[in-house]
Amino acid sequence: MAPKTGLWFIGARGSVATTATVGALALTAGLTRRTGCVTDLAEVAAARPPGVADLAIGGHDVAGDSLPKRAEALADGGVFGVELARAVHDGLTRVDARIRHGVASSGPHDGQHTGSEGPDEGTQRDAVERISRDLAGFRAAHALDRVIVVDVATTEPPVDVTPELSDLDALERALAAGESPLPLSSLYAYAAFRAGCPVVAFTPSPGPRLPALGQLAERMGLPWAGSDGKTGETLVKSALAPMFATRALRVRSWASYNLLGGGDGRALADPVTATSKTATKGKGLTEMLGEPVDGPLHIDYVDDLGDWKTAWDMVSFEGFLGTRMSMQFTWQGCDSALAAPLVLDLARLVARAHQVGESGPLGALGFFFKDPAGEGGHDLAGQWRALTEWCGRLGGDR
Amino acid sequence: MAPKTGLWFIGARGSVATTATVGALALTAGLTRRTGCVTDLAEVAAARPPGVADLAIGGHDVAGDSLPKRAEALADGGVFGVELARAVHDGLTRVDARIRHGVASSGPHDGQHTGSEGPDEGTQRDAVERISRDLAGFRAAHALDRVIVVDVATTEPPVDVTPELSDLDALERALAAGESPLPLSSLYAYAAFRAGCPVVAFTPSPGPRLPALGQLAERMGLPWAGSDGKTGETLVKSALAPMFATRALRVRSWASYNLLGGGDGRALADPVTATSKTATKGKGLTEMLGEPVDGPLHIDYVDDLGDWKTAWDMVSFEGFLGTRMSMQFTWQGCDSALAAPLVLDLARLVARAHQVGESGPLGALGFFFKDPAGEGGHDLAGQWRALTEWCGRLGGDR
Amino acid sequence: MAPKTGLWFIGARGSVATTATVGALALTAGLTRRTGCVTDLAEVAAARPPGVADLAIGGHDVAGDSLPKRAEALADGGVFGVELARAVHDGLTRVDARIRHGVASSGPHDGQHTGSEGPDEGTQRDAVERISRDLAGFRAAHALDRVIVVDVATTEPPVDVTPELSDLDALERALAAGESPLPLSSLYAYAAFRAGCPVVAFTPSPGPRLPALGQLAERMGLPWAGSDGKTGETLVKSALAPMFATRALRVRSWASYNLLGGGDGRALADPVTATSKTATKGKGLTEMLGEPVDGPLHIDYVDDLGDWKTAWDMVSFEGFLGTRMSMQFTWQGCDSALAAPLVLDLARLVARAHQVGESGPLGALGFFFKDPAGEGGHDLAGQWRALTEWCGRLGGDR
Amino acid sequence: MAPKTGLWFIGARGSVATTATVGALALTAGLTRRTGCVTDLAEVAAARPPGVADLAIGGHDVAGDSLPKRAEALADGGVFGVELARAVHDGLTRVDARIRHGVASSGPHDGQHTGSEGPDEGTQRDAVERISRDLAGFRAAHALDRVIVVDVATTEPPVDVTPELSDLDALERALAAGESPLPLSSLYAYAAFRAGCPVVAFTPSPGPRLPALGQLAERMGLPWAGSDGKTGETLVKSALAPMFATRALRVRSWASYNLLGGGDGRALADPVTATSKTATKGKGLTEMLGEPVDGPLHIDYVDDLGDWKTAWDMVSFEGFLGTRMSMQFTWQGCDSALAAPLVLDLARLVARAHQVGESGPLGALGFFFKDPAGEGGHDLAGQWRALTEWCGRLGGDR
Ligand SMILES: NC(=O)c1ccc[n+]([C@@H]2O[C@H](COP(=O)([O-])OP(=O)(O)OC[C@H]3O[C@@H](n4cnc5c(N)ncnc54)[C@H](O)[C@@H]3O)[C@@H](O)[C@H]2O)c1
Ligand SMILES: NC(=O)c1ccc[n+]([C@@H]2O[C@H](COP(=O)([O-])OP(=O)(O)OC[C@H]3O[C@@H](n4cnc5c(N)ncnc54)[C@H](O)[C@@H]3O)[C@@H](O)[C@H]2O)c1
Ligand SMILES: NC(=O)c1ccc[n+]([C@@H]2O[C@H](COP(=O)([O-])OP(=O)(O)OC[C@H]3O[C@@H](n4cnc5c(N)ncnc54)[C@H](O)[C@@H]3O)[C@@H](O)[C@H]2O)c1
Ligand SMILES: NC(=O)c1ccc[n+]([C@@H]2O[C@H](COP(=O)([O-])OP(=O)(O)OC[C@H]3O[C@@H](n4cnc5c(N)ncnc54)[C@H](O)[C@@H]3O)[C@@H](O)[C@H]2O)c1
Ligand code: NA
Ligand code: NA
Repeated sequence: MAPKTGLWFIGARGSVATTATVGALALTAGLTRRTGCVTDLAEVAAARPPGVADLAIGGHDVAGDSLPKRAEALADGGVFGVELARAVHDGLTRVDARIRHGVASSGPHDGQHTGSEGPDEGTQRDAVERISRDLAGFRAAHALDRVIVVDVATTEPPVDVTPELSDLDALERALAAGESPLPLSSLYAYAAFRAGCPVVAFTPSPGPRLPALGQLAERMGLPWAGSDGKTGETLVKSALAPMFATRALRVRSWASYNLLGGGDGRALADPVTATSKTATKGKGLTEMLGEPVDGPLHIDYVDDLGDWKTAWDMVSFEGFLGTRMSMQFTWQGCDSALAAPLVLDLARLVARAHQVGESGPLGALGFFFKDPAGEGGHDLAGQWRALTEWCGRLGGDR
Repeated sequence: MAPKTGLWFIGARGSVATTATVGALALTAGLTRRTGCVTDLAEVAAARPPGVADLAIGGHDVAGDSLPKRAEALADGGVFGVELARAVHDGLTRVDARIRHGVASSGPHDGQHTGSEGPDEGTQRDAVERISRDLAGFRAAHALDRVIVVDVATTEPPVDVTPELSDLDALERALAAGESPLPLSSLYAYAAFRAGCPVVAFTPSPGPRLPALGQLAERMGLPWAGSDGKTGETLVKSALAPMFATRALRVRSWASYNLLGGGDGRALADPVTATSKTATKGKGLTEMLGEPVDGPLHIDYVDDLGDWKTAWDMVSFEGFLGTRMSMQFTWQGCDSALAAPLVLDLARLVARAHQVGESGPLGALGFFFKDPAGEGGHDLAGQWRALTEWCGRLGGDR
Repeated sequence: MAPKTGLWFIGARGSVATTATVGALALTAGLTRRTGCVTDLAEVAAARPPGVADLAIGGHDVAGDSLPKRAEALADGGVFGVELARAVHDGLTRVDARIRHGVASSGPHDGQHTGSEGPDEGTQRDAVERISRDLAGFRAAHALDRVIVVDVATTEPPVDVTPELSDLDALERALAAGESPLPLSSLYAYAAFRAGCPVVAFTPSPGPRLPALGQLAERMGLPWAGSDGKTGETLVKSALAPMFATRALRVRSWASYNLLGGGDGRALADPVTATSKTATKGKGLTEMLGEPVDGPLHIDYVDDLGDWKTAWDMVSFEGFLGTRMSMQFTWQGCDSALAAPLVLDLARLVARAHQVGESGPLGALGFFFKDPAGEGGHDLAGQWRALTEWCGRLGGDR
Repeated sequence: MAPKTGLWFIGARGSVATTATVGALALTAGLTRRTGCVTDLAEVAAARPPGVADLAIGGHDVAGDSLPKRAEALADGGVFGVELARAVHDGLTRVDARIRHGVASSGPHDGQHTGSEGPDEGTQRDAVERISRDLAGFRAAHALDRVIVVDVATTEPPVDVTPELSDLDALERALAAGESPLPLSSLYAYAAFRAGCPVVAFTPSPGPRLPALGQLAERMGLPWAGSDGKTGETLVKSALAPMFATRALRVRSWASYNLLGGGDGRALADPVTATSKTATKGKGLTEMLGEPVDGPLHIDYVDDLGDWKTAWDMVSFEGFLGTRMSMQFTWQGCDSALAAPLVLDLARLVARAHQVGESGPLGALGFFFKDPAGEGGHDLAGQWRALTEWCGRLGGDR
């Protein structure tokens, strides 16, 4: 049976998208195990989502190297085996042929965005139309039931929420007037929603999280999920912080240092862009511990490390009778290998949510995100419970 | 209003008991904060347990130094402030006067116990009587509603479960015949149950966990809880292992090293005794991860470290497409400061359970233990939920 | 016999100076061991420096709390025992009475210094005179052979080396003209040299390191040593980096993170001031490894940590056949306890150098510094050898 | 020009020997950099040793897999690149053809050795002859000036030093009488010396270190070096311990934990064999710190880790005024990649020593060993100095 669900990457030739594509091909061909695939655990599989083999992959990107070349580079960096990359070479070539040139600049605008020339395609309105056409073409070519748009493009800096970004009607007027009010990630999300596609924001970029975008999703009856995949230090934090809280131990400071290379590391080496990430990383701790906690949070680019992230955290806490103690951890993970299966999980679960008619931000998917949209907290165990309960309900549907 | 609940320590002059006693006095006098006191978190306080100020403390020990002297030594080691120890000096002297000489040897026996002479008090039956008398005397002297017996004595080696230890009637016959079938911790538990007292097994010693003892508790309609307080590395494990499991990451090995000094460290430096502890420490991982996991587990005695434990764990795991990653943590905690508030928590919650008529092993208290007796798993978040739900029910009672 | 050597602190009520003073009093009274005192190791004692008991202590500061109060606060923070602080209380009061009000602002000036008002004392020339008078008064009052001035005041930001700071004659003209060309640390060093006193720059501030000051020391025939005491992470680096170099292992990146509280931490929380420290900390690695090495270097202020510094370093290196490996370390040290004995060592050794007629920057003292002035490299073992050879020569003198 | 120096491995198909052989071939073919090769640093190259391209490699082993197969397995484990292994495939096949079957059992004997049957070749005397013949054949076939025998075979358990092992004449008598007094590593060393070959003991096995063997080397005028390559934790210790010593900091405890897989890990999982290693690892600390230091030392086998060793050390130390501090480090190294270049270094330097007529234990090579034979201490910087001074002298020769 032919695949029925489309998975459309924004940033389709990036490390995360390439690893997810390699993985989807390898899983479909039975070349690898399902390690890391949350959706294949019984409690989540209960939702009856589409299988990985049911996914047709395409996407937008603005950069040069082909998927097979990107895969080779990732294999050289140890993200997966050289043999595996070779085994899926032909599949990668096929997916690569479905990648369309994306939108490289958010166009002429009044202030906060920095691109100085107009968008390559004229106004943002024109760009939206082109993106929507690409999505519709993909759906038609593969006779897909639905297409899930997943943003794994380079992180953008945060934006100020102007009136056009707060209110859908104001946004529509601005676009109609030929203005360029949207940051790129939100331009993609806007086009996706307009084309009837659910959205997954795996990056900390604004994307669907601007109020005007949320209103559009609601109006279109579309589900979406975000934001910023929780794959390393923040994941560990969300497992550990509740331990301190439920044991009534007072965390006095929590320092977080991250070293990483790769494309993502390079983007986050820009201090303004990094604030997007440090903001989403920082949010959960206060909520989980019940009070704000002191301590630095750095992300440092070290070219040498490639896709391999090392995070070191130092937690200083106080126990009974004021006794001071501490805990440190070092996390040495491969970022793309951690992110890729989650991207497949999210596409499958959001597809299932769309199928059963859910709409708006899917709080039950908070388990996957640093900065969960919708209802729900940051603690991992609570998120797991919310996820599995939701999956149970979804599985009962239809 | 006078205290209504008795807290009777086996090992009343040890580090844990002394710290708990200092803490209870300091809290009652308003000299310190409730940091580390789980029972004072809203979700647990919902059970309406007795307050710390409602506890009258006494106990058994077999060693020399008085409580004020022990407290001074602990303050010198940094477990709590020198000033605090001074401030509660008089209270400690009063509690010290209530400490009775315990049972130092399990008596003459057929094989497995190593004490070569008879019990100082004759047969185990005589010892039971003496302990029960001490408990009854304590209850009467302070007009207590109930007395909770908490074992914080030196860890014992594991025992083979003989027929006398498996069946209450066989046990009774052996005791009646003047035999000494019980390890010391179980002798205390036996006497406590006989005296109508609930028991908390904070050590990994056999205590109430032998089948014959469980039958006795059931017959007497008494609740009990155990075993082995979860205060450091195992605590962290129970917060972290579910993270790997719910993210479908395959743990390949988990190495655990513990360095500690103090009396507890000295006892565990004996390899046979240590198996009690390494056994209870190891149990949870397999259950939480769904498969057995390779990796050494050591407890090493380093005199220099005193009551300060350093644990280092190294987790090697596999993610998507077989990628190998790792996580390490270092835990630097003060063992007695971590254990002491839990001991107060347990006494208060078990007292409340007794009041509302619960009996048998209290699985809902698994949150506090390395090797939980009764129903329930090892993962900390699940244990927290079970605890708070139970507390909600208890609070509704009467 | 009365003390013959004066030790004059700039920053006499800071953590380092207070700890050094407590230590000198405790050692003199036989209350503590010589742990941490390099000068009492045989190879260094060979230089025949004055003993700790031969030191008379005084100094300048601009802040309020008395030495006994500062000592109490440090004892509360665990830098030394509460009892010890009490035992030397009277001695501290005596030293405190010898502390003079220092110079709080570098005065009116043309640009780079930020103090907006004039120096409390008028021109820098006036300030120099006042400082010199204080030094002469101290020498006379205690009939001292010599006075060593040790800068342990708050770290200053770096300065641009203007012509007045590069050339002694230009400097003299500017001072004569009522200008304020000198940063504060160099103002103190200028006054010290003018008063015939050797100088130890324990901070990364410019102090005696400006060319004009070096010329002055030379002209006066005075020895000096600096700069920035090597007490933690940089110390470890200088022991470890040569291991990689002599084993032909290629260090690819070396990340250094520092967490500390205390007054020093607060000063270094200012990013401009911190560049003084990060500059001196970074210098050695390139020299020791033979090539520049990538990697971040942060110093973060965490109030909660007080005088206790935690540093975490991550070294990524390459071995035979390109194999990638790594090493991490965590250093948990008490900054003032590490610095204080070195301050006493330096005063004693510089006094001895002065006695035997050495002048200019003492490269043989590079062992003690992050950024050694004078001849010599950064590797610790080489510095140790240079130090002990020099001490051997000094001991032979006279 | 044809190679002039033979390098004969005992354990020629083990991980270390295979990696060294791959490296020698790759360096000769210009396929890799000289990272990790100490002998190519200017100060050591000054000795004018033979080049890597001047080495002809052969050896003994008793196990099955061919060198190309072993290399493939090591490449899969990440020790070096898969491409590199392929590039040297033919060279490996050629070396493999020169590997002779070694001696698998030390033969019938009086007590301490555990092999129950006779040596495969009859008496130890016969075995010696066979080994010597193999060495002579290798030298002749390649017209070599000399052959250096390097023991990188499986670690043996320690032996009791019987009279035959203490005195050469007693040993000769026992061998002549058909006895089997020698442990295998010493049997090989005996045969090598008899054949006029210098020996390098890269393992902690007894090898040439038994007194009788030392006498034999002396009598034959042969140099030898050992023992137990210093490649990981002990290397770091020898860089760090002098830091504590020269700073007069008192180390209170030093705990050392090692996790490793691979063949070496498996051998060391045997507690008796492990004592060979823990003994050589432990020796240096006392010497470097000037007093014995408390703390556990474990080597644990974790299959999953393969050739990758993780060591964690925790140093607890005391500074000025008794302040307690600590340092931890984690070393994550590839054991064979660390050992292999040292093996080449040692063969080249011992060949040069032989050429210039040195004999006996070469203390100047202590830099390379955990348990240096001959004169010299354990501290790395001192060993480096001794090595480079010796190299300077050797370079001047002839
Ligand atoms: N890997 C993780 O663990 C992880 C976790 C959370 C979030 N993320 C986020 O996922 C994103 C991708 O990470 P990565 O490591 O794959 O980065 P990457 O740099 O390898 O890939 C980003 C891709 O986006 C493309 N791109 C840039 N601008 C675009 C545009 N305007 N339109 C279309 N494509 C565009 C780039 O050309 C590149 O191919 C980042 O934003 C990162 O922060 C990653
Ligand atoms: N501190 C923790 O974090 C922690 C956690 C879990 C379990 N535990 C367990 O708690 C127990 C106490 O630990 P500690 O650090 O206080 O040890 P400790 O050595 O300081 O105290 C043990 C006390 O028990 C007494 N004792 C020994 N035999 C006795 C007997 N037959 N009858 C009565 N008293 C006896 C000893 O005299 C001593 O006073 C240990 O078994 C330990 O394993 C402690
Ligand atoms: N502790 C270490 O390990 C270490 C190592 C290397 C360098 N240092 C340097 O030593 C210095 C002192 O460190 P600390 O921890 O004692 O800091 P601190 O903040 O406790 O003390 C600094 C003292 O300097 C005084 N001061 C400030 N301005 C002054 C002025 N103009 N004249 C006279 N006194 C003045 C302050 O009032 C204060 O008492 C810092 O510069 C620090 O960077 C410390
Ligand atoms: N890798 C390091 O960093 C390092 C450091 C110091 C010492 N060493 C020592 O080097 C030795 C080799 O380590 P490895 O990792 O290569 O181990 P390995 O198990 O991979 O190799 C050992 C080889 O010795 C062979 N062997 C066993 N008995 C033999 C015999 N009687 N005659 C001839 N060959 C025999 C085995 O068949 C095997 O091929 C070990 O003793 C180890 O302790 C290694
Ligand atoms: Na990435
Ligand atoms: Na400081």
